[in-house]
Amino acid sequence: MADQQLSQLSVNDDDDVVDPWNVAGKSETGIDYDKLIKRFGSSKIDEELISRFEKVTGHKAHHLLKRGVFFSHRDMHSILNLHEAGKKFYLYTGRGPSSESMHLGHMIPFMFTKWLQDVFNVPLIIQLTDDEKALWRDIKIEDARQMAYNNAKDIIAIGFDLKNTFIFNDLDFIGQCPAFYQNMIRIQKCVTYNQVKGIFGFGDSDVIGKITFPSIEAAPAFSTSFPFIFDNKVLPCLVPCAIDQDPYFRMTRDVAARLKMPKPSLIHSSFLPALQGAQHKMSASDPNASIFLNDTPKQIKNKINKYAFSGGQATVEEHREKGGNTEVDISYKYLSFFLEDDDRLAEIKKQYESGQLLTGELKKIAIDTITPYIQQYQARRAAVSDDVMRRYFQLRKLDC
Amino acid sequence: MADQQLSQLSVNDDDDVVDPWNVAGKSETGIDYDKLIKRFGSSKIDEELISRFEKVTGHKAHHLLKRGVFFSHRDMHSILNLHEAGKKFYLYTGRGPSSESMHLGHMIPFMFTKWLQDVFNVPLIIQLTDDEKALWRDIKIEDARQMAYNNAKDIIAIGFDLKNTFIFNDLDFIGQCPAFYQNMIRIQKCVTYNQVKGIFGFGDSDVIGKITFPSIEAAPAFSTSFPFIFDNKVLPCLVPCAIDQDPYFRMTRDVAARLKMPKPSLIHSSFLPALQGAQHKMSASDPNASIFLNDTPKQIKNKINKYAFSGGQATVEEHREKGGNTEVDISYKYLSFFLEDDDRLAEIKKQYESGQLLTGELKKIAIDTITPYIQQYQARRAAVSDDVMRRYFQLRKLDC
Repeated sequence: MADQQLSQLSVNDDDDVVDPWNVAGKSETGIDYDKLIKRFGSSKIDEELISRFEKVTGHKAHHLLKRGVFFSHRDMHSILNLHEAGKKFYLYTGRGPSSESMHLGHMIPFMFTKWLQDVFNVPLIIQLTDDEKALWRDIKIEDARQMAYNNAKDIIAIGFDLKNTFIFNDLDFIGQCPAFYQNMIRIQKCVTYNQVKGIFGFGDSDVIGKITFPSIEAAPAFSTSFPFIFDNKVLPCLVPCAIDQDPYFRMTRDVAARLKMPKPSLIHSSFLPALQGAQHKMSASDPNASIFLNDTPKQIKNKINKYAFSGGQATVEEHREKGGNTEVDISYKYLSFFLEDDDRLAEIKKQYESGQLLTGELKKIAIDTITPYIQQYQARRAAVSDDVMRRYFQLRKLDC
Repeated sequence: MADQQLSQLSVNDDDDVVDPWNVAGKSETGIDYDKLIKRFGSSKIDEELISRFEKVTGHKAHHLLKRGVFFSHRDMHSILNLHEAGKKFYLYTGRGPSSESMHLGHMIPFMFTKWLQDVFNVPLIIQLTDDEKALWRDIKIEDARQMAYNNAKDIIAIGFDLKNTFIFNDLDFIGQCPAFYQNMIRIQKCVTYNQVKGIFGFGDSDVIGKITFPSIEAAPAFSTSFPFIFDNKVLPCLVPCAIDQDPYFRMTRDVAARLKMPKPSLIHSSFLPALQGAQHKMSASDPNASIFLNDTPKQIKNKINKYAFSGGQATVEEHREKGGNTEVDISYKYLSFFLEDDDRLAEIKKQYESGQLLTGELKKIAIDTITPYIQQYQARRAAVSDDVMRRYFQLRKLDC
């Protein structure tokens, strides 16, 4: 079957591991994203697409787009065509709540999603897959829900517009929306065990909840899952997400074809590397590998100084002579994610690679860039009360 | 694992086929129910249990219980103990809607369930698994829901007490009750693909919706799935059902142990045979094998006269001499399900077996017994408007 061929990929031993549960690169420069595009069958975001983006939206491209943090897409031109023609679509992204506080890496897709929401002025739906977490981890239903609420506050603080944003957690929402459950069943009817085994690597000893879970991440990509927002109209959908979530949407696109619904378009981000180096993404399960959104300035400073992998040389003399390597330097990588000023970033790169800028100095720039960023975030986060949060979760019309 | 051993049974070639999707006996006298009890590991309903039933409830045993139509149970004594101690439990049964009208065979578990509801004065929950039908058959979601509503009216007309009965169809209800979905996830977390493969015979090419479906039939056996009825109290449950549904509840009982919830008790019915003979149960998919609840008196008469398998002899002379065989005679079988008068039934048996009563005469008694039964039912059915139905579906407290 064509569907099966499209969703299921073969993996070689020397391929980077990138799936919804594991991300690990084979090289110290991190994941080979060009290779991943080939393996996944997605398209590279090239200069032409970026120019078209700017032309169609009338906005300068976001630095995460220009710098290739968002590097891959599926059918992004269809979305630009729609926008150009004045037709509507919506954004859908999500998160699997996994610890009390989100870290800096979790922010990337959301920062960019907010920009997309602002630029396109379209509704945004954010799914928190607390049911997934309850199924995959040794976590009680009640605790998974609480993590979802905490994470929702973290997400809201990024600055999403209430009038255009609906946030839900599966464990509460699926029991509030028959249309969503009905779409889950429609999807579950199109996908066999063999297919999810091929796409996600599930095995016979996996619990049955895992086996159906992909239908739950797929359902929000169909506008008919949200009749209270879209009045049962069929609208196309754009999913900004980290590349590890692509398997869900390869499956969703296959299913969409069978259900005669529009295939979701995708725009994929790379990963913010762990402090220890680019082979691994920042992960909530290792506090020393991650900068959390609730870290204090002191913690941020200590973590970067202590753990951020350096591309500098062993001695000052050697560094002055040979210069630092920005390809592997984590402080520099973080600057490329969070320092918006292109000229300043280019200058830092030049100075570091020439040996003029030392590792300690580069780390200081990273600390001074990230700390106010997180402090401003924390001020917004402090303002997100239970009451504010509840408004985002309310089933309601959105401005379209 | 002990759980796995309990739920999964080995099947031999000469065993009757009895599972949620297929029922077929190997002998012309029908399913060997004693053998089934041994294979399923349930307990036979014996004289002692029936006497205790009468003693504890203060009611004479229902004829379906006395005549062995309800023939098997799991932990029925626990339910009698509870009732004796003045403690509460609830009833849960269900149906997979599969055609526009129900047939006579569908009535059996419901007739008996109504009697249990009256005798114990406990709440009753009826699940209509329209999602199951949408997954298993080539049926649209909308059509499956409509079948559930039609079947609900058929069920209501049996006489269930509104103040004690909650009816729901999955495709609407699961999207109205977060606690139910949360219990689905709890259950899905306890059961592996290997287990459902062993219990239900699912295969790798089955769609993923089928693989999780057992969790949806299991969830109503936990009172916490219905907080609007039970205020999150943990109450034990008694499931009256046809024996083919037992695999779901073997699984549910395993899961209950893992979730530290009470295991549901069960009381199992045998099947009303098809007109053509006892090897097969009455089935909605074969109109000539079944008497439907919306058949006219003329249709009933024609079907019984034309199709009801006879245990009589080839000629009147031979019949007078050898007598008829009530073990295989379908008209007699139907009388044993629907003629409540024990003395009259015994007399008919005696006369038929002695050859005094001819096949045509026996068929006439069956027609004259079933026709008014169905006519009275149809009068009640005509009174079940959409409005009446909606009241049974309303999420609300029940009298307990």
